[in-house]
Amino acid sequence: MLDKVSVTEYMAQVGREARAASRALAATSTGVKNEALLAMARELDANRAHLMAENEKDLDAGRANGLEEALVDRLALKPQTIDGMIEGLRQVAALPDPCGEITDMSFRPSGIQVGKMRVPLGVVGIIYESRPNVTIDAASLCLKSGNAAILRGGSEAIHSNRAIAECIGRGLREAGLPEACVQVVQTTDRAAVGSLITMPEFVDVIVPRGGKGLIERISREASVPVIKHLDGICHVYIDAKADLDKAFAIAFNAKTHRYGVCNAMETLLVDASVAADILPRLAEAYNAEGVELRGCDKTRAIIDAQAATDEDWATEYLAPILAIRVVDSLDEAMAHIARYSSQHTESIVTEDYTRGRRFITEVDSSSVMINASTRFADGFEYGLGAEIGISTDKIHARGPVGLEGLTSQKWIVFGDGQIRH
Amino acid sequence: MLDKVSVTEYMAQVGREARAASRALAATSTGVKNEALLAMARELDANRAHLMAENEKDLDAGRANGLEEALVDRLALKPQTIDGMIEGLRQVAALPDPCGEITDMSFRPSGIQVGKMRVPLGVVGIIYESRPNVTIDAASLCLKSGNAAILRGGSEAIHSNRAIAECIGRGLREAGLPEACVQVVQTTDRAAVGSLITMPEFVDVIVPRGGKGLIERISREASVPVIKHLDGICHVYIDAKADLDKAFAIAFNAKTHRYGVCNAMETLLVDASVAADILPRLAEAYNAEGVELRGCDKTRAIIDAQAATDEDWATEYLAPILAIRVVDSLDEAMAHIARYSSQHTESIVTEDYTRGRRFITEVDSSSVMINASTRFADGFEYGLGAEIGISTDKIHARGPVGLEGLTSQKWIVFGDGQIRH
Repeated sequence: MLDKVSVTEYMAQVGREARAASRALAATSTGVKNEALLAMARELDANRAHLMAENEKDLDAGRANGLEEALVDRLALKPQTIDGMIEGLRQVAALPDPCGEITDMSFRPSGIQVGKMRVPLGVVGIIYESRPNVTIDAASLCLKSGNAAILRGGSEAIHSNRAIAECIGRGLREAGLPEACVQVVQTTDRAAVGSLITMPEFVDVIVPRGGKGLIERISREASVPVIKHLDGICHVYIDAKADLDKAFAIAFNAKTHRYGVCNAMETLLVDASVAADILPRLAEAYNAEGVELRGCDKTRAIIDAQAATDEDWATEYLAPILAIRVVDSLDEAMAHIARYSSQHTESIVTEDYTRGRRFITEVDSSSVMINASTRFADGFEYGLGAEIGISTDKIHARGPVGLEGLTSQKWIVFGDGQIRH
Repeated sequence: MLDKVSVTEYMAQVGREARAASRALAATSTGVKNEALLAMARELDANRAHLMAENEKDLDAGRANGLEEALVDRLALKPQTIDGMIEGLRQVAALPDPCGEITDMSFRPSGIQVGKMRVPLGVVGIIYESRPNVTIDAASLCLKSGNAAILRGGSEAIHSNRAIAECIGRGLREAGLPEACVQVVQTTDRAAVGSLITMPEFVDVIVPRGGKGLIERISREASVPVIKHLDGICHVYIDAKADLDKAFAIAFNAKTHRYGVCNAMETLLVDASVAADILPRLAEAYNAEGVELRGCDKTRAIIDAQAATDEDWATEYLAPILAIRVVDSLDEAMAHIARYSSQHTESIVTEDYTRGRRFITEVDSSSVMINASTRFADGFEYGLGAEIGISTDKIHARGPVGLEGLTSQKWIVFGDGQIRH
């Protein structure tokens, strides 16, 4: 274990090398980046036994330290996990390169031609918890988008992450790229996170992935921009003019397809005029799945449910629990969303053009939907190919963040000797 | 003067009202926003005498407090300044509304249709120094982009800004919009700035306009994202394959067109193979304008110049001073830029396709040009219609920031009852 000064010095060295590598990456062709990704995939495939042996050390230590079984499970590198990492690298290699894309070129009256070129952000720091496959996801997205990456995984996964880092390093070398393009932080000292998030000279953006506590602490303490989302309190609103079969399918899917995910519905809003028709059907289906229902008074006049409190409207359950509120109008539904939503994803079920248009225009969330399950709010479903996270902020990236969210744009000007008069 | 607690409470009140107004603005049509802008223009025109009388109070106080004559001059609301403000409002009204623009709609294999809609950021805080016309610039750009604005001008301009704020308020009322859409902070207490930049619950982004000290302090202390630029250390590189007539015109214009602006050239880089041809011509022209030259040894072997130090390469003169360095290659020029540039604007003068392409691709600045004067790097010249500032950051807005830079995008999904399988 390094002492505090050494950690700061070590992280500054990591940062300096990342910055230098990011300059090299910005001038690297798409072909070379893809070559590195495919070489990493080959290295993982060739080193399965070593990866699993190193992972076993983490699993043993986890069990010895009394880590919960669910966490040990997330930590495990099974053969299928390694298959998934290899497949992920190949998929990212196959995605179009966002860098260098030139858009919006137009001539100005002065004779200059102005447009924008997409460019990497520079150096991306990723802080994540125990799942070691995130190491490959993050490395591949950063590399493809032309960014150097500094990866700080959970200390429980340090042996696994070091073994994965060796494969990444060899893949980079095979393609002729500096190993510092992707660095895995080699110390488990927590001070390393503190350094990583306060080095704006070396790091351009931080992406934290993990529990709300981790993300809140990082956002509070970082002096570098953070791409993050804290909560996913997503709503489905069943409008008076909803097709009730669609409403049933969407409200059931949005809650029960997976419980522990940020794009699951946590509160169902139902227009009073259709509540008596749709709620009993839905309650029966939810009950069959063991979903606990908590409702407002009007809801409880129709179906069995516990009384919902103000806290329920503001809670991301991530569990088989659903809050239900009956509202008198679209305006009341949107007011509820404006007050309680975490601005992640909201969906209206309606056949009414004007109400759908109002909902899409006025609801201020990173994803707003008509007649679709909130579960679609992710990078793969949106066609980004992969995602490094979902942002509920409005500055820079918003919603699912793929390769484009890891880039910026610069203005480019083509002239013919023009001067300003 | 309010006491500290009162300032915090006052600013929280301003913030709360701005947040509420921003919700109303997000649902306001383009026509109503334009009506408000034109009504403000009429109000300014109808209240010229009052505006100038209030401005006179600021000018008197400034002179009494020993304000420098140049600052008193910037503070003055002359009839032409008011003409300019009125014209500016009309121009912003004529610009297209960025909000609601839907792009990239495409069908996904699941049957959902996914795209993006441009939306306001929410509440924008602008902190600026004494020029009162910034009040109108900032108010109009924020309003048109659908954002509520909190404007904190210099205390020297408080009477002028209050008088302008009254015109803005009446314009908003005439169009049926809440006056809190644009609020001018009514206290000159410096604690108001401290509050404004640490209310993420009420303010989405801060745009500071002023000296480097002000901007550095705000960036350091803000808990809200800041759109800023600190320095404009811009370079022109005259390549070996430059057309020397274009090189002469561009290098002369970029330095001498205006000295005190961020997009003026501060360092000229000249390829060694053309230095003896171009430098004497340029030196003669600069000397005729009274521009002081500071050069590297190779420069001083060709023309008269003071010896440039390392500090010269890192200085934004904002004055008739120019640093000149002779380099041996494009790589040496780009290495100098990577080390010393403030990432604002750089231009290469060349007829060589491959070198131009490399410069455009590899130089990491907010504007990168071929054969054009760095002086073009501004919102009007780029066709943005107006600009609220220039950003040298890579997160969110970069380069000249117009209406689009004051907006974000949300994902929108149109479905037909789709659920996730």
